[in-house]
Amino acid sequence: MSNIDPAGTVMERIEALARISEEPGRLTRTFCSPAMRQANDLVGSWMREAGMTVSEDAIGNLIGRYPGRDERAKTFLLGSHLDTVRDAGKFDGPLGVITAIACVQQLHQNQVQLPFAIEVIGFADEEGVRYQTTYLGSKALAGTFNEQDLKRVDSRGVSMAEAIKSFGGDPGKINSAKRDPHNLLGYAEVHIEQGPVLEKKYQPVGVVSAIAGQTRIKVRFTGRAGHAGTTPMNLRQDALTAAAEFITAVESSARAQAGLVATVGQIEAKPGASNVIPGEVNLTLDVRHQLDAMRTAAVERLQNLANQIGEKRGLTMDWEIVHEAQSVPCSRELSDMLAKGARQHLMEVTELPSGAGHDAAVMGDITPVAMLFVRCKGGISHHPDESVEVDDVRVAIEVMNGFLLSLGNQKHPSPSKKNV
Amino acid sequence: MSNIDPAGTVMERIEALARISEEPGRLTRTFCSPAMRQANDLVGSWMREAGMTVSEDAIGNLIGRYPGRDERAKTFLLGSHLDTVRDAGKFDGPLGVITAIACVQQLHQNQVQLPFAIEVIGFADEEGVRYQTTYLGSKALAGTFNEQDLKRVDSRGVSMAEAIKSFGGDPGKINSAKRDPHNLLGYAEVHIEQGPVLEKKYQPVGVVSAIAGQTRIKVRFTGRAGHAGTTPMNLRQDALTAAAEFITAVESSARAQAGLVATVGQIEAKPGASNVIPGEVNLTLDVRHQLDAMRTAAVERLQNLANQIGEKRGLTMDWEIVHEAQSVPCSRELSDMLAKGARQHLMEVTELPSGAGHDAAVMGDITPVAMLFVRCKGGISHHPDESVEVDDVRVAIEVMNGFLLSLGNQKHPSPSKKNV
Repeated sequence: MSNIDPAGTVMERIEALARISEEPGRLTRTFCSPAMRQANDLVGSWMREAGMTVSEDAIGNLIGRYPGRDERAKTFLLGSHLDTVRDAGKFDGPLGVITAIACVQQLHQNQVQLPFAIEVIGFADEEGVRYQTTYLGSKALAGTFNEQDLKRVDSRGVSMAEAIKSFGGDPGKINSAKRDPHNLLGYAEVHIEQGPVLEKKYQPVGVVSAIAGQTRIKVRFTGRAGHAGTTPMNLRQDALTAAAEFITAVESSARAQAGLVATVGQIEAKPGASNVIPGEVNLTLDVRHQLDAMRTAAVERLQNLANQIGEKRGLTMDWEIVHEAQSVPCSRELSDMLAKGARQHLMEVTELPSGAGHDAAVMGDITPVAMLFVRCKGGISHHPDESVEVDDVRVAIEVMNGFLLSLGNQKHPSPSKKNV
Repeated sequence: MSNIDPAGTVMERIEALARISEEPGRLTRTFCSPAMRQANDLVGSWMREAGMTVSEDAIGNLIGRYPGRDERAKTFLLGSHLDTVRDAGKFDGPLGVITAIACVQQLHQNQVQLPFAIEVIGFADEEGVRYQTTYLGSKALAGTFNEQDLKRVDSRGVSMAEAIKSFGGDPGKINSAKRDPHNLLGYAEVHIEQGPVLEKKYQPVGVVSAIAGQTRIKVRFTGRAGHAGTTPMNLRQDALTAAAEFITAVESSARAQAGLVATVGQIEAKPGASNVIPGEVNLTLDVRHQLDAMRTAAVERLQNLANQIGEKRGLTMDWEIVHEAQSVPCSRELSDMLAKGARQHLMEVTELPSGAGHDAAVMGDITPVAMLFVRCKGGISHHPDESVEVDDVRVAIEVMNGFLLSLGNQKHPSPSKKNV
């Protein structure tokens, strides 16, 4: 294997993994499915080939351990998830697991042991397709798994507890998967960007500054339905024109503030007939920023805007925050080490926030985290067209190799937690 | 009956008709249904009571004829429709038929015969609920009925031809219902306004200037879907923000032009997830004006606007006109006569276009038409809350009585067709 391009191997393995699906003709691999069983077995075999001992924890996370020089030393975690969305792309998740294995394989081939152990984790669930809940795998490690979730049932009536059991896990002992923060040095994850920034900047990889916080809001404008032909413009209480004014204001407001993204993704106008003025409009608003203070200020500003639009037009406006997640800053120390490695390959290293959630956001609860994004084609993700270039994967592997060696050369390899 | 308030009688009869429904608990009366059979029979009995001879034509229109002084004289038509939408209000349609009967009843009681015959028509279908086609009744009279429609089937698989037959009509002889324009003096219809204008002006009735023309357009903006978290604002091709900009522009544009109404009633954003930037938006646009030139100019202006918005944002815009109906002007002569009658009761008579379609629009093909709108509560129509005051009905009856007498006093009762 030593003469083969590791990036080429990573691409081949990602292709091989992509053939393991629970749906014919498209890639779908959900938590504790037979496809996940096959995936864990295959990836486990690659881990063994890279000199790792392989195990699975109580929730089905696949763990490959590469020992350090001192067996009492701490552990550095690498990884990402092996589950996918429905009709998925090949790279979201597997890229991080397979590049991590490639890095360990290189150490193994060169008979290098670092002062600390490395564990590569293939998380059992990040996308949450089967049970409509996310990060099951990393939450088990972080100790934030909600035991109530074990009662959830999938679309065929199978409870999560049953699913874990039939997979070979132990739903009664999810706690045992929890990691002691004192034994951890940190967590680093390679992931496709799932956005267009690196492509636009002609950068193969970028260092993630933070996993952005998010507020999800349900907004409703209530006016009065009316006949589209018989109600003059000045006597209308059109909920859709109010919503339209709000949507354009959301866009302008987000454009005016660096790093802010705000999106209306769903809209429903009632009653929804071509000849009836909409009396009610429901829409979703998704606001993200890597700085929580900026995000909450933006949300407040947008709520005021919606209120003003409603009042001006004689409509009522309802505003319901349905989800809120704090930003998870990446470790400055680990990120600088990644950037230093990247600078060996790039003139300039792009630092960017992750607008999407990742296992790293959960792992941030117990250990310093860092992420390396790999450029993807057209920002496309969660879609069969998801695409990454082999040359970019090569850069990612080299950056991660350099990162691990730098970490090993540190006198005191114990970056403080959340020191951004 | 002579001592009873005719408006009170009209209200009682409208209540009685509203109890004839094909659905329990709500008013639904569709073309050639058993409920329509009952309705025709009941209304026919009131026609007879008012001195009319009663018949049904081949499509099931109910026709009551009150002879003129000279049996060779022409005929003036009054009427509206007896069918309803699903879960309808009581007044849309029946108000016009029942007030017309009240007018004839008054002539009959006073033993007055006019120089011309009057026919009161209860059209069998205006709303088109059962066969998704409108104005079946008036089209039969106007000679514009499409024989192909006889093959249409309702939701239970019953063809229109079968329905007409079982109702007692003759689908093979729809042509026989056609009226000779030379024998007609005109058509006048009383109808609830279905809009808020008269209520806002504190006017019980108003004279209709024209039945507005209408253009219905399907508009599509196609951009690119993307992750709501990972796609910066400046790299988006958001189809919904484009649509929102268009909707607000439609509103401003319509507000800026007297008599123009433009409505976006349906909107669909795809893929329609809260965390995905919409890549495609489909919406409907409904544009109406009583002057066709104004409407077509407005449609062109809005299409240019949509194009500009699409181009500016790097999106494609599709524009498909799916329906276009010309405006039907009411007869100046007949409308002036209505207005003259109304001036006996009101300081000022409001003339307003009808944004909704009516049987009068079809009858305009063969004879001069006029319409009297009656104020309704809150502009609500096509809804059980549809409401008209008895005092306003009284004004309507008196205006129509005056109108018929003026028409009888004319030396040459032959208003020219479409002389607006």
